[in-house]
Amino acid sequence: DTTADVDPGEAADFLRRCYAENPKFGPVGPRLAVVAAQLAATGTYTHTPDELAYGAKLAWRNASRCIGRLYWRSLVVLDRRRAHTADDIFSLLVTHLRIAGGHRPIGDGRIGEATRPGHIRPVISIFAPAVPGRPYARVHNEQLIRYAGHDSAGGVVGDPRYVEFTARMRAYGWQSTGAPYEVLPLAIETPAEGVRLYRLPADAVLEVPIRHPEYDWFAELELRWHAVPAIANMRLTVGGVHYPLAPFSGWYMGTEIGARNLADADRYNLLPEVARRLDLDTTRESTLWRDRALVELNRAVLWSFESAGVRIADHHTESDRFLRHLANEERVGRPTPADWTWIVPPMSGGLTGVFHRYYDEADQRPNFYLDEEAR
Amino acid sequence: DTTADVDPGEAADFLRRCYAENPKFGPVGPRLAVVAAQLAATGTYTHTPDELAYGAKLAWRNASRCIGRLYWRSLVVLDRRRAHTADDIFSLLVTHLRIAGGHRPIGDGRIGEATRPGHIRPVISIFAPAVPGRPYARVHNEQLIRYAGHDSAGGVVGDPRYVEFTARMRAYGWQSTGAPYEVLPLAIETPAEGVRLYRLPADAVLEVPIRHPEYDWFAELELRWHAVPAIANMRLTVGGVHYPLAPFSGWYMGTEIGARNLADADRYNLLPEVARRLDLDTTRESTLWRDRALVELNRAVLWSFESAGVRIADHHTESDRFLRHLANEERVGRPTPADWTWIVPPMSGGLTGVFHRYYDEADQRPNFYLDEEAR
Ligand code: HEM
Ligand code: HEM
Repeated sequence: DTTADVDPGEAADFLRRCYAENPKFGPVGPRLAVVAAQLAATGTYTHTPDELAYGAKLAWRNASRCIGRLYWRSLVVLDRRRAHTADDIFSLLVTHLRIAGGHRPIGDGRIGEATRPGHIRPVISIFAPAVPGRPYARVHNEQLIRYAGHDSAGGVVGDPRYVEFTARMRAYGWQSTGAPYEVLPLAIETPAEGVRLYRLPADAVLEVPIRHPEYDWFAELELRWHAVPAIANMRLTVGGVHYPLAPFSGWYMGTEIGARNLADADRYNLLPEVARRLDLDTTRESTLWRDRALVELNRAVLWSFESAGVRIADHHTESDRFLRHLANEERVGRPTPADWTWIVPPMSGGLTGVFHRYYDEADQRPNFYLDEEAR
Repeated sequence: DTTADVDPGEAADFLRRCYAENPKFGPVGPRLAVVAAQLAATGTYTHTPDELAYGAKLAWRNASRCIGRLYWRSLVVLDRRRAHTADDIFSLLVTHLRIAGGHRPIGDGRIGEATRPGHIRPVISIFAPAVPGRPYARVHNEQLIRYAGHDSAGGVVGDPRYVEFTARMRAYGWQSTGAPYEVLPLAIETPAEGVRLYRLPADAVLEVPIRHPEYDWFAELELRWHAVPAIANMRLTVGGVHYPLAPFSGWYMGTEIGARNLADADRYNLLPEVARRLDLDTTRESTLWRDRALVELNRAVLWSFESAGVRIADHHTESDRFLRHLANEERVGRPTPADWTWIVPPMSGGLTGVFHRYYDEADQRPNFYLDEEAR
């Protein structure tokens, strides 16, 4: 509940863990006293930048659905708590995407770090916390970059998942071209300004056209996907403080694109077309034409990203990394909560090491929550 | 606990459900009184053949890991409660396999039903229940038909999963040929006779050589698999009565063979060899060579069974059937407990309808239990 006072127990638990895992932060005792006083006086408290950064890393480490947690320490945390206007928020989200995509060095204008488009880095931008009893800014988009979808006589053009969202954006006045891979505007809502729409600049949206290493006709399908998956609608909760706007992004695991976004029957649904081009026998399921088309689509995704120099990982590699993460955590005596149904990839599950074991399922905080679930 | 008295509440629950779902069984009241008296006098009670048969069907209907439950009503139930010697048990298990494989009509010698090898039918053979405080007969094999595995200098020959079991069988005096697909003997233990080994007759073990619809070299791999998966080590629990020996069998879903038994790294581990024959680039995971070899291996399994006239189902078809089962059960107001992690197939999970939903997870009885888990 983002409207209630901060739970003092959760605050203290977080601070103890945070300081215990970071001796350089100093002793936790004095800090606990300060926070207790702040909680008593205001019902909430303010994280130091170090606490906030480590809290975000812990939230990632605790994200039980995420297979990509090996690199949790390397999360780039952008402290954006002072931004309140839609214009400021938009400009900082653009910076997020540029940094995440490798376009610009971290720290505006810092010298010595080269621009490397495609060198995807895990990034989170943390905006102002929810203050008990007060409205807060948020982004209506599920992800910062997603493609519009439009109902048409011949079926949906674009991403069927966003037909309703697209219609809402048009109702707000967004002018759409109706193209199948048209990036949606950002819908930023602030208490003072209501909902405002923003178009992302081209250099903030790294995209990869999908081709196949062997089949030239694949390019004719004119598929593409964006390089940075940036979830924008989950609430970050650290030590009892809720950050309703805290978009985070990593790099893609290929199957998210090739086995879900482009393949799901209620998304781009491309397997029948790929199978047709491959001339597969689609009259019976037992020819496994779906499975064969799926593999070729996923090969194409991985190969196209790799060829374009855009970081991506296949599911075998991410599975191995996650098993290393589990071993690391076990070595330091920490349980790793994980949700089997999300960790195991949506294709060739049995081929991955993550399939062949069980996991702890605890809900550990800090963490990320979908507001529908958590309220 | 198979050594304790039958739980009267579980007995009554089962009988009420059994009679409620089967009006032709008559009113449950008198039956409840009889059973209560039997429980008070002996600590257990005896199922009528009808109760036993329906109880076994309910156990299948409640098997939350099983995707094949659409046909739960069609289970052929063989009531073998009077068999006690190892010889009798063996002979009835052979009959089970023959009936399950379509080799022989149901009911020994009944006229008018043709022998149709490959026409796999779901069958369960239910042997004597555990009597509180007394030892009982059981089969040591995990499945009635499985292949031996032997450690050798060049790695395991046969099925690595059964290396230990194979060694035990050899210690009991079993003479093995050391071939890679050699059917293990049945190890039947009775309280009076101890452990006795039996060799299955050839006509009880339907097998299919694996070839590929396009790649002729596939036959050179000399792969084969048996047609009937018959789990022998799970305890059937019906209305509080435990049946420690109640082997059951259906037909295979192709992925059980092609994506697990023949593919798992700790089973026959055939993907590297298949990939080599397909001339795939195995230097990097992101070529998805494993996934491509997996699809071809599974195509081969399905095609070989189909060509041999042996019933098998692909994972798309079984997924659709399970969704129909869910709809059927919902229509009559019954929850269908299901374990997502077992229901979703080990390959192309995201392509199946069963992937894209959640399930009830209750443990409903009657059911099947692995003795290690349940004791
Ligand atoms: C660095 C590369 C990363 C990879 C390869 C990765 C991989 C994945 C994958 C495959 C999923 C499942 C997505 C789905 O099936 O819809 C997932 C979910 C998730 N990841 Fe990661 N991830 C990465 C970075 C991050 C970062 C930086 C964070 C947060 C700081 C994060 C937090 C989460 C959360 C909260 C979920 C669950 C989302 C939900 O419930 O919808 N991940 N991740
Ligand atoms: C008719 C065709 C059938 C099909 C296609 C089918 C399919 C499956 C599959 C794919 C599994 C998962 C196996 C694994 O991953 O190891 C499974 C598990 C199971 N099935 Fe079925 N099944 C069938 C018949 C039956 C029958 C006749 C019964 C009992 C009367 C049954 C009871 C179970 C049980 C108890 C499990 C869980 C086994 C365990 O925990 O290891 N199934 N089934």
